[in-house]
Order: sequence, then C-alpha cells, then structure tokens
Amino acid sequence: MNVAIIGLGLMGGSLALSLKKLDFIEDVVGFDHNKEHEKQALELNLVKKIITFEEVKNYDVVFLAIPVDGVIASLKNLINIPKNTTVIDLGSTKSKIISSVPPQIRENFVAAHPMTGTENFGPSAAVEGLYEGSVVVLCSLEDSGELQASVARKIFKALGMKKSFMNAHEHDRHAAFISHMPHAISYSIANTVMNQENKNNILALAAGGFRSMSRLAKSSPNMWEDIFRQNKDNLLEAIELFEDELQLLKKNIKDENWDNVHKNIESGTKLHDILD
Amino acid sequence: MNVAIIGLGLMGGSLALSLKKLDFIEDVVGFDHNKEHEKQALELNLVKKIITFEEVKNYDVVFLAIPVDGVIASLKNLINIPKNTTVIDLGSTKSKIISSVPPQIRENFVAAHPMTGTENFGPSAAVEGLYEGSVVVLCSLEDSGELQASVARKIFKALGMKKSFMNAHEHDRHAAFISHMPHAISYSIANTVMNQENKNNILALAAGGFRSMSRLAKSSPNMWEDIFRQNKDNLLEAIELFEDELQLLKKNIKDENWDNVHKNIESGTKLHDILD
Repeated sequence: MNVAIIGLGLMGGSLALSLKKLDFIEDVVGFDHNKEHEKQALELNLVKKIITFEEVKNYDVVFLAIPVDGVIASLKNLINIPKNTTVIDLGSTKSKIISSVPPQIRENFVAAHPMTGTENFGPSAAVEGLYEGSVVVLCSLEDSGELQASVARKIFKALGMKKSFMNAHEHDRHAAFISHMPHAISYSIANTVMNQENKNNILALAAGGFRSMSRLAKSSPNMWEDIFRQNKDNLLEAIELFEDELQLLKKNIKDENWDNVHKNIESGTKLHDILD
Repeated sequence: MNVAIIGLGLMGGSLALSLKKLDFIEDVVGFDHNKEHEKQALELNLVKKIITFEEVKNYDVVFLAIPVDGVIASLKNLINIPKNTTVIDLGSTKSKIISSVPPQIRENFVAAHPMTGTENFGPSAAVEGLYEGSVVVLCSLEDSGELQASVARKIFKALGMKKSFMNAHEHDRHAAFISHMPHAISYSIANTVMNQENKNNILALAAGGFRSMSRLAKSSPNMWEDIFRQNKDNLLEAIELFEDELQLLKKNIKDENWDNVHKNIESGTKLHDILD
C-alpha cells in the first residue's frame, strides 16, 4: 500500500513517521503547498519524496492533513481519482467537510478526526507515536465505500488507535464543547493577560497552572480560524453556555455566597472522576 | 535550625521533603488539623514527628502551608511566639493576610508566595523538588524583622528558588490575572462540559487540549474558595476583562469577521514569545 500525505505539519508529519513503520505500507510520500515545509519534511526524513498535487491520484491512500477549509478545496480537485483510492481527512470539524465531498468521490472518502495533537505546528513539530493510544472518531462511515472503510480501519488499528463512531452533526457538537470552546478560551486568556500584565510579571508569576491554561493559545492561527468558521454555530453555543457558567460563579463570588462558590468548585472537580 | 510546618498537604509536604535535605536544617516536624493527614505524613516520612499547634513556638521557623483563611486564623494564635521565631506563610493571596498580622508579631512574619504547585492535594500529593527552580514572591519584606527576612531568603535560596519582590496589592492583582482567573475558568469549563456531555463522549473526545484546560479544576475546593474570597475584587476584575475579550472573539465569529478572528488568534499566540 502506497500513501500520499497532503500537509506535512504536525499531524501529517507525525502520521508519516508512524506509517513508515507499518509492514503493509510501502512508500510514504508527501505534498505541501508551503515549499519550505516540503523542504523541511525531506530534511527531517518524514517522507520518502515530495510529489505534486496531481500525482497523489497514483497512490492507494491519500491523507488530507491540512486546515479544514483546505480539505474542502482539495476534495474538489480530487474528483478524478481512481475508484479504489482511499482519501482520509483528519480535520477537526466534520459536517461542512462531509457535505462538500463531490458525490462522484463520496465512496472514496473517509472522514476521520484523530483526537490527538500538540500545540506546536509545522514539520518540525512532528513526533513519532502521536497517534498511538488515542481515539479516532470516524464519521458517517456507512457512506464510505466498503474497501475504503476497511482500509481506514486497518490503518488506524495498526497505528494503535481506538475507534469511535458518530455522525458528523454529533461529532461537531461534542468537539465544540470538548475542544473548540476550550481553544477559544485559551486565546482569550492569553490576550487578557497580555493586555493587563507586562512581560516581567508574566514571567515572574506564570507557574504550571497558567502555562496549562494558555498552552493551547500557541496553536496554529490558520488551522483554528478554519475550525471556528466551519463549526461556528456549535462553537458559539458552547461559548455561551460557558459564559453562563462563569457568570454564575462570578455572581456567587460578588454576592459572597461562599457556600455556592464552594459547591460550584466542588462540582467542577467531579470531572476528574470521569477523566482520571 | 528547626522547622515546624503547619499544613502537611501538597505544599507543606513537598516543602518538608526538600527542607530535610538542607545541611543547615535539623528537625522538620509538622502539624495538621486533619488527623488523617498527620498520620499519612508520618507514614510517607514527610516529617520527623507530629507536634501540637501549641508546640510550634518551640521551633525557629514556622511555615503556614494552609488555605489562606486558615493563615489568618493561625496568626492570631501565634501572638506569643518568641521574638526570634520566623513565621512564613505560603498563601496565594497577600493583602488580607498582611493586614491581619497581629502587630506584636509583624516582625516575625514573612509573606511569601511560591509560584509552584500541582492540581493534586493532600500529603500523598507531596513531591520532592516542587519548589526548585520556581519563583517565590516576597511581599513587603521591609516590614519583616531583619533576622526573619534573612532566614526566609536563606531558606528559599537553598531551595533553589528565584526571588521576586512586590507589595501585597500588586501581588494580588497580578496573581488574579495569572493564576486565580484561570482557575475560575477551568472550574467553569469543567462544569459546562459535564452539564452538556455524557461521560462516554467526554472520554472518547478528551485529548491533551481539554485535559490541559480542565486540569486546574482538580484543585482543592477548600483552598480555592478561600483564595476567591480573599482576592475577590481583583478576581472579579480579571474575570470581567476576560469576559470582554471572549465577547470580542465571539462577536467577530458571529459577524463572520474572519480577518479579525485571525488577528485575535494570532495576537494570542504572541504570549508564547514571552513564555517559551
């Protein structure tokens, strides 16, 4: 099986590193619209060679590891791929992508969202093992061709991932709460603190807690602008429900209703009965 | 030098582990109002022995490693300590504590805030090296006795900490933005997600980003209720400025003003030019 990866940043580059190790994968090649990234990907030995976008149709599997608006644009340019090609996107939103797949390649297409990543980006951010042990959400897999669904399952299994199935609408709402809204908040924390605090005080006082809350604010602006656009309605709903929750905590603090503050804090700690 | 630590949780327990290693420290003993914690602290070998609160006056240095309301209460019960005793509090707020120090022991007292910690609490959370390499903020050190200031400097230096000096008012405002507001947000994220999402979807979709943003929501409710109370006005201001910032991002998303969304995200990423 030969694989072409479009997008050689954190997600695509890390994927290349892991795919190369699999016994049923022969060549892993790549394309990136950023020529500097292509050069780095070769230097870092992420892919065997760089190909043109037109050449991807010669590969059995094509991964789209690019910002979600780019996924939609690329799919339009893949309408003449062979019947047996599998195209897998790794984007963080799913509804707009799935509804934009040209019908003639709908069976070629598998919508996947690997729940992994780091705040770093570009080819130099690629790390081996990024996918291992994480969940991959597969959306509306029943609309993919039988061959393509089984190719995707085989690859994600070989990467050591746990599969989760849901439709695109469900996925996008859950992702808004569990990923996209927290990213928006992290950017806003970063901006608030930079508006209010000078560099020296930030450096003096920033301990692990602040680093943890502002870490996501390092994430790629191109990637996140696209996600916010494609998941706009769910994201706005999630932000507004978060605002209501913060408003409630603030009101209890303002009113010195410390019993309620305590209950609010304590109920927040319960999340970790689920997560840990 | 003999040291008594009041409060044998994460901060006090970790401190005990590091102090024991210093050549100028003889005994490190402890007290905790929670008898179970005292037992655990002995079992974990954090302190040499457990003493009563009344006995702390027999030690050269007394650390108060307890929630900030407890610091204020304890200081009132320490008014008859010897002239040469050094009492150091490690609380996350400073104005209310400093203004509540009984005048007869003001020179005994050193207000310190070590900018370190983890989301875990209790004696079992104690880890060696927690203080090493972190900043300790010393507030209004000019009001401490000369002996006490020099004892505190010596200990924090030996712990490998970097010192930062500011008055309590400045400290509390900075801490509100860089620590207390992010904690409040983390609790609200945790509550929002638990209200909207079931356990299975949280587990399926929670990747590193969500864990990072909700980690602080594990922190001790007793400790954080006190901090929110003592730093109420600064915290409310910080939350409100954060709300304005999030509101702006939300408005740009709602209005589909993607250039502004991109600028907002990009300015957020600039924080990491300072932090990294």
